[in-house]
Parts: sequence; structure tokens; C-alpha cells
Amino acid sequence: MKSDRIEFFGAAAGGAIFDIIRREGPISRAQLVRSTALSKSTISLHVDRLLKVGVIKEEALQTDSGPGRRSLLRFAADRGIVVGIELGVTSIDVAVCDLEALVLASHSEALDIARGPVPVLTRAYEIIETLLSEVKQEGGSLAGIGIGLPGPVNRTLGSVVSPPIMPGWDRYPVRDEVTTHFGVPCFVDNDVNVMALGEARAGSARASESFLFVKIGTGIGAGLVIDGQLYRGFKGSAGDIGHIGIDGETTRCSCGNRGCLEVVAGGGAIARKGRELAESGASPFLSETAARFAAEDPPREITAVEVGIAASQGDTAALELVIESGRHVGSVLAKLVNFFNPEMVILGGGTVNIGDAFVAAIREMVIRRSTQLATVDLVIRRSAFGEQSGMVGAALMVVDELFSTRAVTEMVREFDG
Amino acid sequence: MKSDRIEFFGAAAGGAIFDIIRREGPISRAQLVRSTALSKSTISLHVDRLLKVGVIKEEALQTDSGPGRRSLLRFAADRGIVVGIELGVTSIDVAVCDLEALVLASHSEALDIARGPVPVLTRAYEIIETLLSEVKQEGGSLAGIGIGLPGPVNRTLGSVVSPPIMPGWDRYPVRDEVTTHFGVPCFVDNDVNVMALGEARAGSARASESFLFVKIGTGIGAGLVIDGQLYRGFKGSAGDIGHIGIDGETTRCSCGNRGCLEVVAGGGAIARKGRELAESGASPFLSETAARFAAEDPPREITAVEVGIAASQGDTAALELVIESGRHVGSVLAKLVNFFNPEMVILGGGTVNIGDAFVAAIREMVIRRSTQLATVDLVIRRSAFGEQSGMVGAALMVVDELFSTRAVTEMVREFDG
Repeated sequence: MKSDRIEFFGAAAGGAIFDIIRREGPISRAQLVRSTALSKSTISLHVDRLLKVGVIKEEALQTDSGPGRRSLLRFAADRGIVVGIELGVTSIDVAVCDLEALVLASHSEALDIARGPVPVLTRAYEIIETLLSEVKQEGGSLAGIGIGLPGPVNRTLGSVVSPPIMPGWDRYPVRDEVTTHFGVPCFVDNDVNVMALGEARAGSARASESFLFVKIGTGIGAGLVIDGQLYRGFKGSAGDIGHIGIDGETTRCSCGNRGCLEVVAGGGAIARKGRELAESGASPFLSETAARFAAEDPPREITAVEVGIAASQGDTAALELVIESGRHVGSVLAKLVNFFNPEMVILGGGTVNIGDAFVAAIREMVIRRSTQLATVDLVIRRSAFGEQSGMVGAALMVVDELFSTRAVTEMVREFDG
Repeated sequence: MKSDRIEFFGAAAGGAIFDIIRREGPISRAQLVRSTALSKSTISLHVDRLLKVGVIKEEALQTDSGPGRRSLLRFAADRGIVVGIELGVTSIDVAVCDLEALVLASHSEALDIARGPVPVLTRAYEIIETLLSEVKQEGGSLAGIGIGLPGPVNRTLGSVVSPPIMPGWDRYPVRDEVTTHFGVPCFVDNDVNVMALGEARAGSARASESFLFVKIGTGIGAGLVIDGQLYRGFKGSAGDIGHIGIDGETTRCSCGNRGCLEVVAGGGAIARKGRELAESGASPFLSETAARFAAEDPPREITAVEVGIAASQGDTAALELVIESGRHVGSVLAKLVNFFNPEMVILGGGTVNIGDAFVAAIREMVIRRSTQLATVDLVIRRSAFGEQSGMVGAALMVVDELFSTRAVTEMVREFDG
């Protein structure tokens, strides 16, 4: 309702027109006239101002088909660069992108988030500086930094709040520290929201109005996108599906409840159950792997990856574990599909890669246990983005914030002022 | 510059300003200047046009506090009347309302929807005609008719599609038949969406941006309101929570699946289980009631109402049934609260009135089984609207459609034309 309103009023029309150019460009002035129902002269007036502000640019179009100047308008994506960071529980991914989230340079490495905010951010700063020096000649100046964090994020505070697996991070002012360090705006959100944003703007769901992004890694979470916008819920906890209870399950979860989805069927749960199969001898493949891992220096433990390999090698117990875990996830998603009736469900996170049987079991349960109307044209697919969705989504979050309709309206207003 | 804007954005700005007056009025011109950031002269120009089109009206304001004319602007709610109808499975409720959904006259009676569309609509026409003749002197002319239907509605077709409990209604062109009969626009939606709309605009959730309305009657369904707008989902089936599966339950549902929420814990399920308690003798109170009902002419059967009475009288088996049913509903709602993080959950429908124990059991499960962040400020309450929410919501649906920003923009444009 409010956004409808804004578009109609004079001062904000420039911002609204910019928004169309950013999302649909390259686009001609004539197309803008058609899609806004504004007059040619009004469009010209706003476009000229946006060109002067520098948020769009004009590209000459070579054509033989008629007289007169032809050109297309597009977002000035080379106007600056942004940094997108995905902090995982055990890893960091950093990308330097242009304003359309094209990756100019990136770096990933193992990093234990439990080391605490100061060591982790210090290492992040080093990585950012190195990447920035690499792309120095190409991009414009640094416009902002976005960070996806693996815990519940309070966006007002700009920090994680009571994260179960991030010792030392509770209420640490991540956003403000990074803003101070680099002197540019920083935006933070939880990793799943950031990934969903990446899918909505640049990934599998680009054409989808409303979808559900589900990340299955050590933990399980979801991001809801409605009309192309992230829906965060009343307190910002929308999509927190890892703590949905599985009836009849009693395993204790870090949240204090029992039988939460992620402690029953997440990557950590699959690893734990895989180790049990190895110890009991129920899975010869996993027993053999565990013995081999134990002899390594340093010794390793079985993870969900090895359970997936065992399943794909025909190990019956491992395959059953993979299918049972997929069914638990699918059973919860079936309920959410009935409730939310999305156009698409996108599965991301490391654990979806443990084998086709896992995704097949999820899909089977969703189809079997949702209403026909909710599933008849439902698309369930793996993220086409793979490892990049977090850092690219974090970069897109920055661009969305810096070039929101409201922000561009302000730029135009100041320019006029 | 400003005159350009007025010229080019005239009609659309008029629609947007009308929208503010409808939602926030009575409102002064000065308040409109503040909330739109438009100039006083621009506001005056638009307001004058809206007054001439007749969609708003002006009220003189008596005041001693200063010189000059003072007046407030408001939606011209007496400009016409609308009819809102809630068709239930066994009842019809019809209201004639002004454009702010104030009920001018209403009528409710028992009506079996299984009689089919022609007899049911014929009876609805008679009721509407009678009510219209009652309010003839008061309201303006009939502007439109809204109908809530107890089944899955395809809004493009204007009919119900494959309804499980409405023989003869499948794809019957309800909207077009009613439009033809009265010569005014008709709008249809499912009953739960219409009730949710009533709550959002005139009921318990008036100040709430995002909430969940849950109707528990013979069946169970939900309406999702996000930023004050109904969210219908990709195929219009969002909120279809009655067919969410309860793990471990195997009762066959009319949808073809087993163990759906509504067949386990809806009003029909409670009645069925109550009759079993009466037959087995497990509930002395219900056995006695059943015997008394069987002796009546015509004989009656126990419903959820009698189970509620038995429970409130201290009948242990009936109380256990009520609590168990509430817990099933609460267990599903807990999952949805985790996923959706609403500001409010409003419980409506006849079955929520069978006793406080039912609502208490729902609340207990939601609080116990959702994350703390999702429940810390969550309000769970019964609808304050009672029986009226369906017909009033249906009337509001008509007003929303007839006086949408887009529709009023068109009116202004035609007036200027």
C-alpha cells in the first residue's frame, strides 16, 4: 500500500523510474513511457535528472532501421563496487562485485566463527583489502559492505542476538565496527535471508514472485520472498524452520526444545547418526571409513558428506539414513507449502549435495503430503548458484539498500535542492 | 516544476490521496500536506477534484481556537451501499452495509449449501431484495456485492473449484450470475480470506501489519495478511492449513490424504469423537445427552457444542477430547508461527467457542513449541467480531475493489476527461 503511494508523487517519481530501469534495463525511453503510462516529456525530464545524478547511464544503440538517435538506459553498475561476505560456521566467502553483483574478485577460506568477532573480522578486513587492491583499476570506489551471519540477526542493532553456536558474538556491533573501519555503510542479515535475496535477484528464482529458499547445512533455515521482497516477520524471525518440532522426536536441541527439525535431519544430525552407524557396524562402508579417518593425522570424523558417499555406493543403512532425513525435511516443507503456496522451493546449503536420494525424498514428501492445488505447478529445485549465493546475496543486499527507491529519491531531491 | 508534476501525475496522485483519506480520515488538508510532502496548493487541487467526483466529503469542524474555515475530509461512506454475504456449509449471513462496512441491515438463516447453486442463490436474492427495501430511504444505490464461499475459489473464474463438500458448485459461475442478476459488480473469495479481510480492516487486527486469521469450524482454514493485504499464494491456496498432515494420524480425509488437521481436530472431528465417547460410555455426560437427543422429534446428534458443554461440566473424557483437539491445532500453529513470525494470531469460527480449555490448549502448544523470538510479543486472541466477520469482510472486499487506488485514479481521469 505504502509503496504504491510513493510512486505517484512528483518528487519520488524519479526514484520509481530508476527502479524500473535498474530491474528491467537496458530499456528505452519509449519502453518507459509504455510501462509507466507517463508522457514522453515527463519521462525525459526524470531520465535527464537521473543521468545527471549518475545512477543510470545511456548506451548508444547501433541500428539501421530508422532515423534519429536510439539509445538504451541502464543502471550505472560500474559506478562503484560493493563487498559481499558470507560468514559460515567454519568458513568465510568474500566477493568484490560491481553494482549488478557481477563478481570481480573473490576469496574463500576455512575460518572458525567460534574464534570470536575480533579475530574473525580482522581476518575479513585483510581479505577485503587484498581483493580491493586486485580490482583497483577496474571498479569505482567502495560503496558499501554486506555481511550474512549464521545466526539470528537484529537488524536494528546490526548484530547477532543470542546465537547458539557463535560464542562471543552476542550483540557484538558487527555493522558499526565494519562501518567505522572502512568508512562506508555496512548492512547485516542472517545468512539464509542473504542467500534468498541472491536467488531472488540473480539466481534460480529471478522470475519468481514468491518463493521459499531452504538452506540445509549443519542447521536448517528458510528465507521467504514475497513479491520479490524478503519477508522477515514481526520480530525478524520468519523462516526459522530449523526449530519446527517433529512430532514423536525427542532429541534435545540447542534451543532448549526437543525434536527440532535441524537436530533430527540437518547436516549435523546426519553426521551424528552416520557415526552411530559406523560404531554399531550397521553400515560396513561407514565403519571402514571411520577406521581410515581415525588413522589419519590429525584424525577426522565422519560428516554428512561421507554418509552421502556411502549411500551412493549402495550402503543400505546409509541410504536409509539419507532418505529418512530427506523425508523429515520434506514432511515439514509439505506443511509450509500447504500454508504458503509458493511458486518455487529452492534447496540450498551443503547438505543438499549429499546425494540425489536426499532431494528425491524431500520432493516425494512435499508432493505426497501437500494439497494438489499447492503442488500442481510447484517447482522444487536445487539452487543453481551453489557456493556463491551467500556472498553475492550479501552484495545485492548492499545495492538494494543504497539504491532503494527511497534512497534514489533522496539523491534526486538533494540534486534539485 | 511543480505545475508539470500536477499536470502529469494528476489522476494517479488523486487516487493516492483518496487512499490516505479513506484509511486515515477524518483528516485535515494540513495533515495531508504533512503526510504526502506535497504543497498546500497541490493538495487543494486534488481534494477539490475528489470532492467533485464525489468519493470524499467535507465536514465543517466547530472550533474556537482560531480564525478561518476549518474542516475535515473523509471517505463518502454514505455514497452507496454494498452487500456482503457469507455462505457457510449450513447457513447464510447477509449484510447491507455502508461503504465503511457499518451494517445497516442483516439477516441470517439456516441454508444447506448442498442444495446446489441455483436454489441457494435464489434464496440469497430474496434475502438481498428484502434487506435492500428495508434500507431504501437510508443509503445510496447498490454499488456491489461480495460473497465468501466455503471452498477453494478461483477468482479468475469467479467460482469455486473442486469443492469437497459443495455438490453442484464446481465451476458454477457465481460471480457472473450475481453480476447479471443485480447489474452491479460482484466479487467472490473463500470464506476464510473474507473473514481475515474483515479482521484486518474492521476487527481485532486493525492496527496489525501482518497476522494470521485461523477459522476453526467444521473445517479448518487460515488467511494470511501481510502489510495489510491478503496474501493468496501462487495458486490462491495459501492458508489451506486444514490439510496439513498430523504425523502419526491415519483418519481418512475427504481430500484423499490421511490424518489432515481438520479431520483430526476440526469441529466435525470433535463431534464424531464425542459420539464415540457417548456410545462407549466413556463420557457419562455425553451418553446421557445422546440418549436425550435420540428421543427428540426429529432426533438430533451430538455436535462439538455438546462436547464443549460436557467439558465445561467437568466430564473428564470430553475435557480430554477438547484439550487434545486444541493441542493438535496448536501444534500446527506453532510450526506456522516459527515459519511466518506473525504479530498476531486471531482465532475465529464456531469451534473456538466450545470452551476456554480449547483456546488455552492451542495457546499452550504455540508458546511451548515455537521459538522464544517468535512468541515473545505474539498476541493470540479470539476474534472480537464473532459471527459478523464473514459478511462484513465480504462487504469490505467490495469496497476495497471499487475504491482501490487504481479505480479512483480512473474515476478522476474520466472526470477530467
